[in-house]
Order: sequence, then structure tokens, then C-alpha cells
Amino acid sequence: MSDTADRLARAQSRMERSGLAALLLTTEADIRYFTGFLTRFWESPTRPWFLIVPASGDPVAVIPDIGVPLMRRCGLRDIRSWPSPRPEDDGVSLLIDTLRDVAPGAVGLPSGPESHMRMPRESYLRLADAVQLTADHEIMRRLRMIKSAAEVNAIRTACAIGMRAFERVPEIASTGVQLDQVFRDFQRLCLEDGADAVPYLAGAAGRDGYEDVISPATSEPLRDGDVLMLDTGLTRDGYFCDFDRNWSLGAPAPAIASAYTQLIEATQLGFEAAVPGATSSDLYHAMDRVLTGGKGTPGRLGHGLGMQLTEGQSLMADDLTELAPGMVITLEPWIETRRGCGMVHEECILITDAGPEWLTGPAGAELPVLGGH
Amino acid sequence: MSDTADRLARAQSRMERSGLAALLLTTEADIRYFTGFLTRFWESPTRPWFLIVPASGDPVAVIPDIGVPLMRRCGLRDIRSWPSPRPEDDGVSLLIDTLRDVAPGAVGLPSGPESHMRMPRESYLRLADAVQLTADHEIMRRLRMIKSAAEVNAIRTACAIGMRAFERVPEIASTGVQLDQVFRDFQRLCLEDGADAVPYLAGAAGRDGYEDVISPATSEPLRDGDVLMLDTGLTRDGYFCDFDRNWSLGAPAPAIASAYTQLIEATQLGFEAAVPGATSSDLYHAMDRVLTGGKGTPGRLGHGLGMQLTEGQSLMADDLTELAPGMVITLEPWIETRRGCGMVHEECILITDAGPEWLTGPAGAELPVLGGH
Repeated sequence: MSDTADRLARAQSRMERSGLAALLLTTEADIRYFTGFLTRFWESPTRPWFLIVPASGDPVAVIPDIGVPLMRRCGLRDIRSWPSPRPEDDGVSLLIDTLRDVAPGAVGLPSGPESHMRMPRESYLRLADAVQLTADHEIMRRLRMIKSAAEVNAIRTACAIGMRAFERVPEIASTGVQLDQVFRDFQRLCLEDGADAVPYLAGAAGRDGYEDVISPATSEPLRDGDVLMLDTGLTRDGYFCDFDRNWSLGAPAPAIASAYTQLIEATQLGFEAAVPGATSSDLYHAMDRVLTGGKGTPGRLGHGLGMQLTEGQSLMADDLTELAPGMVITLEPWIETRRGCGMVHEECILITDAGPEWLTGPAGAELPVLGGH
Repeated sequence: MSDTADRLARAQSRMERSGLAALLLTTEADIRYFTGFLTRFWESPTRPWFLIVPASGDPVAVIPDIGVPLMRRCGLRDIRSWPSPRPEDDGVSLLIDTLRDVAPGAVGLPSGPESHMRMPRESYLRLADAVQLTADHEIMRRLRMIKSAAEVNAIRTACAIGMRAFERVPEIASTGVQLDQVFRDFQRLCLEDGADAVPYLAGAAGRDGYEDVISPATSEPLRDGDVLMLDTGLTRDGYFCDFDRNWSLGAPAPAIASAYTQLIEATQLGFEAAVPGATSSDLYHAMDRVLTGGKGTPGRLGHGLGMQLTEGQSLMADDLTELAPGMVITLEPWIETRRGCGMVHEECILITDAGPEWLTGPAGAELPVLGGH
């Protein structure tokens, strides 16, 4: 059975149990999951896209004319389209008519954590008046957590590309180089090593670690004694890796070297705990014991990934999602080095019947050193 | 007056006319517009972010803890945060309390074309029960259409980077090179020439043009006689360019050369029509006369851009948005070369008091030729 046929069968069996006549999908990842519709055109917010997955039968695409050739090549037979943009009725009438036609009854929209409805609020209000909308009972989120062999393969390839790029960081980063230049050059390395795109790159550099891990790069030059961190989400064939690496510019201070070793130890314990049946919470606690002695690290210490940079479970104390073979997650311990400042390490792993498997790393226990000029 | 102070004043004056107590913003571009909060962390769908722009007083951020240091550096004084992810209440209670506190009354959500609500449907339903939600009367869309000098400058820089990268395409594309390799290498050139990121790259190659402009690159090698098109949306300081270039692999067929010349002529006529007071429709018709003799090109022939790859107006027959100084738009004529196949050209222009100004190009009237091996 092909991946898409298998996904459809699993979705429809869950829809039957939930009493849904259809799923209505509006986001890039959800629509691609059932169609293979891969395009960077989603970067444009102008046009809405809809996929109806009925409780029986094949998915029906309700999409702008501009997407019809590609959706046809994806193998969809029932494609209904309109000349978008058409602000006064951007697909909503067509969507309502199609839903009534192919799936009269309760229509499940992804409604829980991490979801959003990619359509204007005005369209949503019209739709909600015309058809019976309800939640999808997290069917999409749960389905997407378990990766197929092909999905694992794509993530594995993305991870390998990231690994090669990280190995080449000594070519681009040393004392005196501006951080924004390092960011540009690192994305270039990812592309040279085979990335299709680099949708995500974060990072930071600072004396005792970094205050936050989401800020854009400044033009500050790297200084001796800095810790540099780069965290990448590159894609290959529509799948992400998400992991980071740290370096010290020159020999690290003992406290930093030791904090880094703790991060690696936490990652190792998280890895060992990542067996089928263990929960996100178990992994969190395994890592937190090393990081804070069990006092509790704020935030999460890893998450699922795949078609999106982050998706599925969060490694937090109160996330009781059980690991199952085919899940791909990150282990992402964070340690405070001084108040408001810390370091983060991240690896990607796969859950298999036989236990966890590294998709990246594992990194060695010693913080790598980059030379000065 | 700073850009953000000016934006706030303009928003608040429109909110007063519309009887809104606040705007509630949930998307990257809208939140950045009033705060300067620039981060690639939005790539993760996990956490919702909210900005309240009250009818008087300063914006209030209701955001995950992880964003507080950066939002503080942006200069916001009133930042309320929660430890996200917290699936059972991911900021919604805090948002409701804050709205009641700072802006009791009608809360305007961007609701029209191109908008979406970036929060789970469950959160939206809770919010809609607790506060009086309404449309933002397209305040955000209208405000963002007129760029400040700093915004124009950022777009101008992005355009210049794209121009340099396009000039270097002969280094990376010739007969026999796979299209996906050209895509990777072109993104590399954008980064080498100063892009912060390359969120968008589309393109195609084919004998008489291309069937669509949104498909991902295949590994097919370029062939003599192909027309190659690359269309990039790179960013610098959070602002996009969006334009394309075409090349012929070897000397083009006369019909293709002539179609290309028509595209350039259409672009020139669109440019000449782009004076303050002219409508999107006027520009569409000016270009369509060259492209189809006035029969009507399907879709749109350009659009606004800025913080997003596409935003604001569409150059279509029924879009009556008037051009005003400070608007940045693309001219994007499309011409059919045979049934289901065509070519597209695109340039970015700025509208000024004195008339239109090229931010890219203009390209010459002859289709550039790339050599074979």
C-alpha cells in the first residue's frame, strides 16, 4: 500500500470512530500529507487552499486554478478550482458546495494544539454558517506523529545534510567574523551539501552562552571566549531536520565546558529513555535530572518534527504522549549558565521497535573549539 | 516620529473611525509591524503569539515566555507572558484577561483577503465567547500597503541583492545541469550577495516555456532550447523582493524571443501607467493590451509586497485600489506560448509622487541566452 493510501485508510478509520463525514484541511503540511502537493508557493498568503478528506472515497481538492497542474500531477482525480484571488468569494462558495456534495455531515477541522485555520476569518464565519464544523479530534496530529519509512528516509537525509554542514563550520566561523555573516554562510553550506531550502536558522553567540535562541543575527563579530550556537531546520523533499551545535571560540571557561558536558549527558539519558511506551514526560525527567537535579527546567526539552520544524509531542513534565516506533523527535536540553543566560543542545532521534536510533550525532562530550584568526 | 509611533498613530486614528477598542494581531508580519519583533522562530507552529493594539496607548504583547527577551529589546513595556507550550490553555486566558483590562469593547481581527488567525480553532472559539470580536475593517492591510522610507530602503536592498544574484546565473546554469541543482546554487548566490534568508524560490524550465510556476524543481537536466525561469523572494532585514528572470538555453526559437519581447513591453506599459491615482485595474489593462490584445489574461499581473512575499493589492481587472506614493508592487505579466504553457516576467517598482521608479531591472527587451557546455 502506498503511503498516501495507507494514510487515507488510517484517517478514515479514525473518522468513522469519531463520527466525522470529512476532514477539512487548510495548511501546507496537512494538505501535503494526503496529496504530496509540495510547493514553496505557500509563502504567499494571498490564496486559500482546501482539501476535503471524506469518510470514504478519495480526497477532493478545492484549490486556486494556479495549483491545478501540480495537483493533477500528484494524482488527485477530483480537483475543483476557482480563479483566485477573488476577494469577494475566494473559494468559499465552491468549498461549501463541494462539502455538501461529497461529505454531508460533521466536518472536522484541526482545532487543537499547533493548528490554525489558514483562511480569512470572514471565510470561516461563512463556512461555519453553512456546514456543521467540529474538531478533528486531533486525528491529523496523531497520524502525522508516526512516520512512514519514506518519511523517515527523508528526515534522515535532511539530518545527514545538516551534519555535513555543521562539520564545515570551522570554514566559516572564527574570531572577528560577524554573526550575520556566519548565518549567511551556514545556510550556503546547507545548500551546498544538498538542502532544498533552509526555512529555519537560529543561533547566538555570547560569553557565557546566550540569553535567547530566537533572535536574528546581529552584525557583532565573534570574540574569543564566546560560545557560538547554530540551530538549523533545513529541508529535503519537504522534510525537516532540527538540531544544533555549539562551539567555543578559543578554549572554553571550565564552567562552560562542564555545562556543555552536562548537556551531552542529559541528551544521552534522554536517548536511553526513548523506548516505545515511554512518555514525553519520562524523557523530560530523565534529562532534567542531569540539568537541574530534578528541580524542573522551564519550557520543553524536545519535540516531534517532520513536515514541520516542530510538530506533535513536547518533551514536558505534563505531556503523556507515549513513544511509538516511527516517531521522530528531538532531544533538546537547556542549561542555565548564569541568570537569564544558558546553552542548548539538540539532536534528532528515531523511535524503533528495537529502541532509539540517532539520526544526528551523537555529539562528543567536549565542546568543540574554533580557532581565532 | 519613529516608524512605529507613526504606524500606531495611523492605526489608532482608523480604529477610532471604526469604533474599535483594539486590534488583535496574531501573525508574524502584523505583530512585527508594530514592534519590530523579527525572528525566524515563527517557522515553529507550536506557540501562539498575540499583540493587542489598543485605541489609545501603547501595544501590549501577550506572548510565550521564550519571546520575552527579544520583545523587551524591541522596546515594548507591557509584555505579559506564559510558559508555552501549555496545550490546555496556551495563552487564551491571559489574552482574554488582558483584552478586558486594556481594551474593553470591540476587538478587530484582520478578517479579509490574505488574512488568517494564527491560533487553534479551539482558542478562537473560547476567545469569541469571552470578548466582542469583529473585523479590523482591513486597517492592517491598508496601513501596510504604504511603506515608510525605511521599509522602502529594506526592499530596495533586497532587490539589489536579487539583481546581483540573477546576474551571476551564467555561473550556475547551462545545458546538462539539473534544475534542482540550479535552485540550490541560486539560493547560495542570494546568500553570498547578502540575503538574510531565501524563503521563496520558484522556477521552471521547458521547451516552449513552462506549464506552471509553483512546482518544486525536478532533477531533470537543462536541455538546449529550454527556457529557464527563476523567481525569488529573498529577504533582508525582514523585507522581501519578488521578481524573476528568464533565459534561453542556446538561441531561442523566434516565437519565444517574440513572446519575451511582448512581456517586456507589457512590463514597460504597466510601469508607465503606475502613477499615483491609477488603479490596479488600470495597470492590469495596460499590460493585458499587449499580452492578449485586451481579451483578458487569467489571474493577476502583479501585486503588492513588503513584509510578505505578496501582500496588499492584486493587479486584476476588478481591483480598484488606487496607487499612492510609498506603495511597492510587482509587475508580473504572463503570456501563453502554447496551450497550457507560457512565460512570466516580473519586476518590482516603487510608486512616488513623481511617478513610478524601478527597484529591479528593467530587463532588456531580448531574452538572455545561456551557453551550453
